[in-house]
Amino acid sequence: MPYDPAIPLSPGFLEQVPAFRAGDDTPRDLLERCIAVIEAREPEVQAFVTLNLDGARAAADAASARYAAGNPLSPVDGLPIGLKDIIETADMPTQCGSPIFEGNETGRDAPLTAALRRGGAVIVGKTASTEFAYGNIMATCNPFDPTRTPGTSSSGSAAAVGAGMLPVAIGTQLMSSVMRPASYCGQVGVKPTYGAIRQAGIHPFSPSGEHVGAHAASLADAWAVLRFLSNEAGPVPGSHGIVGPEFLPAGERPARLMRMYTPGWHLADADVKAAFEAALNRLSNAGVEIVEPASAPALQALEDDFARADWCIAEIAAFEMRWPFFEYEAAGHTHHPRIGKALARAHEITLAEYHTALEFKAALRERLLGARDSIDGIVGLTAPEVAPVGLENIGNPVTCSPATCAGAPSLTLPLMAAHDMPLGLQLVGFHGEDARLFAQAAWVEGAFG
Amino acid sequence: MPYDPAIPLSPGFLEQVPAFRAGDDTPRDLLERCIAVIEAREPEVQAFVTLNLDGARAAADAASARYAAGNPLSPVDGLPIGLKDIIETADMPTQCGSPIFEGNETGRDAPLTAALRRGGAVIVGKTASTEFAYGNIMATCNPFDPTRTPGTSSSGSAAAVGAGMLPVAIGTQLMSSVMRPASYCGQVGVKPTYGAIRQAGIHPFSPSGEHVGAHAASLADAWAVLRFLSNEAGPVPGSHGIVGPEFLPAGERPARLMRMYTPGWHLADADVKAAFEAALNRLSNAGVEIVEPASAPALQALEDDFARADWCIAEIAAFEMRWPFFEYEAAGHTHHPRIGKALARAHEITLAEYHTALEFKAALRERLLGARDSIDGIVGLTAPEVAPVGLENIGNPVTCSPATCAGAPSLTLPLMAAHDMPLGLQLVGFHGEDARLFAQAAWVEGAFG
Repeated sequence: MPYDPAIPLSPGFLEQVPAFRAGDDTPRDLLERCIAVIEAREPEVQAFVTLNLDGARAAADAASARYAAGNPLSPVDGLPIGLKDIIETADMPTQCGSPIFEGNETGRDAPLTAALRRGGAVIVGKTASTEFAYGNIMATCNPFDPTRTPGTSSSGSAAAVGAGMLPVAIGTQLMSSVMRPASYCGQVGVKPTYGAIRQAGIHPFSPSGEHVGAHAASLADAWAVLRFLSNEAGPVPGSHGIVGPEFLPAGERPARLMRMYTPGWHLADADVKAAFEAALNRLSNAGVEIVEPASAPALQALEDDFARADWCIAEIAAFEMRWPFFEYEAAGHTHHPRIGKALARAHEITLAEYHTALEFKAALRERLLGARDSIDGIVGLTAPEVAPVGLENIGNPVTCSPATCAGAPSLTLPLMAAHDMPLGLQLVGFHGEDARLFAQAAWVEGAFG
Repeated sequence: MPYDPAIPLSPGFLEQVPAFRAGDDTPRDLLERCIAVIEAREPEVQAFVTLNLDGARAAADAASARYAAGNPLSPVDGLPIGLKDIIETADMPTQCGSPIFEGNETGRDAPLTAALRRGGAVIVGKTASTEFAYGNIMATCNPFDPTRTPGTSSSGSAAAVGAGMLPVAIGTQLMSSVMRPASYCGQVGVKPTYGAIRQAGIHPFSPSGEHVGAHAASLADAWAVLRFLSNEAGPVPGSHGIVGPEFLPAGERPARLMRMYTPGWHLADADVKAAFEAALNRLSNAGVEIVEPASAPALQALEDDFARADWCIAEIAAFEMRWPFFEYEAAGHTHHPRIGKALARAHEITLAEYHTALEFKAALRERLLGARDSIDGIVGLTAPEVAPVGLENIGNPVTCSPATCAGAPSLTLPLMAAHDMPLGLQLVGFHGEDARLFAQAAWVEGAFG
């Protein structure tokens, strides 16, 4: 069945909460509906590496009792959620997609896991990740077409949400690993401002570049869970985190959005380009001025810098992955070629070269902040293509890495289609202004509704 | 025997390396000399919680072979070193001074541990720490007077170096936990610029405030080991780390040093004050202008802000310790009262209050950087007192926390005495200028020599 962005994925979690409060539904019943989808779709999609249905049912029953008593613990009480398998859980192994972590039981919860439990969320299972969120490809496939990739790294989280197995799953992003799979799998994907959510207890690859993000059936769910985690698990120590209301801010029309090209635009085919131009026309007709980078030297310089984001992220990652990858290497672990390439660079790169990359990153951040007076945000393709055919071709990060490198918040909305598959519309905001970006996204969704 | 700062503690490691190269001595022989001191002093001092003499002898033999072959691995090849017991080691438990971590084997090395091994260092054992580097007091005593405290938190590392058991030990500092014990135990102590050395694999308390530092018999050893670790283990991801030569920079006379008071000055007794005034006179006679904070409004504002450092660090720590302390609490662990107090605040503090403290910290950093045009650094007491009598009175951080809160590099030199005990002279530098601070310290040592 061709993908149609006008058909909602599945009801968001928060849409179902009023029925919990009214006694017409329970978190346990919601969980059972999720489990029914998992049973139907998981043999094909393979989104999970571990399921803990007993634990989830116990947590859902406890949440059901709290709603019945009229005192849920938090906005995520009763939320069925999946966690990318590089995030530690005391009750499930954390296998990082790697043979050297097979059956790895750390016995502890990552901060975000612990915060979800304290808030009453229902942790259903661990979702498939490429090795250390970087290397080898998993068996997971795209829920809209099993001959296609779900994307990379956070692929299990994206596939689970895209298949309607869960309303929310947590992913992580170094370049595009939340945003791209979310685009390929027809869902909301969010990478908040760098540092919004503490990374401790998450297997490290490049801590100064990695972000915790959300895959979600709705924008409202994504906001609630990320805002909750930032406040309860805390941000990356020293970062300011997500401030704002508990629930999604009201829609706000951006007056001017800069159109982002990046080298990714040249990779897009005619159908993808046509879908994006149609989306821009829709925004324009609804009163948003679309600003071309070429219209101002500072904006063109920003667009030009975007082309170096992939290089910058890779250099920083190479230096920061020395530990623990040097240790794996010393222990004789043979890595996936993609990790091997980064590891070879890790052996060569000096602290001074690392500085050079950090300085580019800081300059990109300042340049983006400098554009804040002339634009209200940025709009672009989330990915230059729909999900490629074949599980080995995981796609290209080039349209997502600029916002990631700058540390600015970005999100993708499942508002377009091409080749009968989902295609995400990317919005990029300014550092620390996650609430404003969500408000703009809520307005954009409305403009497409 | 009354402490005399004119009598060196023990030979620094680097002073002994030429004999390794010449074939007149070996790292194994140096290790055996260290072990002889450990055997003589450890029953009283109790600096270690775990010793791994077999592992150390094997590492020292390997280093001896490399020097004999003329190819040591790094400036720390053959260095006998101790690690504070919150730092992970694959071959020894990491017990964090806590009953809930008794016998805790993580099976992995922290980045700094791994880098030391790659560089050929000889890891002799794990040194005593208060619980999670914050709570209960250990049995460790001051090597210069067993009725007195060695200080807090990194007390085992300070006592081991002060007793001459090791030339270098690694400690960590949230407020003053490297600097104060180093002052009490008559040695060089260094807290580099925030982020100089990666903290992964170190039990977390307040990651945005914690620093890895060094206790050392000599300034040259401290520089070599910290510079090596920053380059090889890497800095805290996103931080710039310690740049500069492999070995201690040449001495450099500071033209103007601001005299730091802090509320600690009012806690100092007449003997301590007299020792400090004599030290300032010596610097003044050697050509350093001592600048009073009251001489300029910007400097007085800086001095005034120093009084809020303890508050700021404690607030940030309370928020950041939510994880993993909420988990320990849920598991029924009863904490030391000092941790309990911070934990009570952790339950109350909001993300907005955390912001307030982070903003004070950022402003303090900017204010200190703003003073860079009018002064070349800061000089003060490392502690307002010599090591107090009794192991429960661990002293006061008030003179060290300003530099820690600002994230600026600081170090203490064992150049003074009072009450027949060591008293440290503190120098504070500017962010990222660790090499310059060491150069000034080398000059100051010379001026006292």
